Amino acid sequence: MTLSPTPRTTLNREKQRAVSDRAALYDLLDRNLICHLGVIADGAPRVLPTCYGRHGDTLYLHGSTGTYSLRQTDTVCVTVTEFNGIVYARSMFNFSINYASALIYGVPERLEGEAKLEALRVLSEHLAPGAWDYARQPTPKELAQTAVLRIDLAEASVKLREGDPEDEPEDYDLPVWAGVLPVEQRFLAPYPTADLADGIPMPAHISARGGVAMQPWT
Amino acid sequence: MTLSPTPRTTLNREKQRAVSDRAALYDLLDRNLICHLGVIADGAPRVLPTCYGRHGDTLYLHGSTGTYSLRQTDTVCVTVTEFNGIVYARSMFNFSINYASALIYGVPERLEGEAKLEALRVLSEHLAPGAWDYARQPTPKELAQTAVLRIDLAEASVKLREGDPEDEPEDYDLPVWAGVLPVEQRFLAPYPTADLADGIPMPAHISARGGVAMQPWT
Repeated sequence: MTLSPTPRTTLNREKQRAVSDRAALYDLLDRNLICHLGVIADGAPRVLPTCYGRHGDTLYLHGSTGTYSLRQTDTVCVTVTEFNGIVYARSMFNFSINYASALIYGVPERLEGEAKLEALRVLSEHLAPGAWDYARQPTPKELAQTAVLRIDLAEASVKLREGDPEDEPEDYDLPVWAGVLPVEQRFLAPYPTADLADGIPMPAHISARGGVAMQPWT
Repeated sequence: MTLSPTPRTTLNREKQRAVSDRAALYDLLDRNLICHLGVIADGAPRVLPTCYGRHGDTLYLHGSTGTYSLRQTDTVCVTVTEFNGIVYARSMFNFSINYASALIYGVPERLEGEAKLEALRVLSEHLAPGAWDYARQPTPKELAQTAVLRIDLAEASVKLREGDPEDEPEDYDLPVWAGVLPVEQRFLAPYPTADLADGIPMPAHISARGGVAMQPWT
């Protein structure tokens, strides 16, 4: 299934950077952990970082019930970006960054009951796979303090820039080095909290992440 | 000089995560390279990743003159986020992420002439220090295709979460491991473009970045 963009999810510029298949959207969402949620607050845009989760063609967000950005009944924009490198061109004009980003538009639906609990499990499994069945699960009081939103992944676009610089033909003769400085995001070794009781081993679902790159091709 | 927040840059929740000094804002901006620019487009929020630069108390953005997000005459929101780790708590409710983020509100001013060129130099030196004096500088035609905006760093807030999980007192007896899985963003070894002519050495301002962490404390 391809993405079905509306005018606002159709690229007007640099169309060669548009990626139109749904699998690319899902891959990008699955290998990253942080999104930027854009809402309108008092007539101005507001952009906040937050976690997310995905199951099928649904995106989940959560946070405190007191968070303004989670009390939206109008369209929001969710952007997920990974920054993969700096592109050194022969001219400043052709400098660029390698990146992939997804823009998702949707009207959030607030979840309650079983759907809310299931969404929290999805959010947890995205940020910290294995944690939901290991740590203490939420109490009714904690659930009441947590807002969970679902957004359909119906209106979205993915943009990608990768690989070498694209220089002007007349610049190839310049004695200027051109290439790519890759950037990666990586988990380092996990460490225990200072007040951890003796004799509690680090579970494999945590220890296995140490040293792993989030974007596996880098 | 402290930040002087308006109501929209004053935290209503988790006030202990607010950082109010201007030096923290500048440090966060200086050690990261990508921001998310939020604008209102056809009545909906739109959030796009882009590069930025800072000089003194001014933030600069740039891009093609055809980019809608750079043709704003109303307030925009610029958010810079670094994601520093996953906080494993004893309860799912207290899971969190370690991060620092800055929110900046401002009405962009479009630059021309000498101010535009100077801003481009600042943007270039932020993304790729040393490149401006090494690669070919922009032609008048290239400058005409580039929009450059300045935003005063007058209305901003910085939010920070770092360190160990904060668990409920009654959860400390659970046999659950708690701690932090750090995340870092790092430059890998730069590589030349496939069509680089023979005999062009990689300059030190590029080679010196390979292997360097963007957030130096990780």
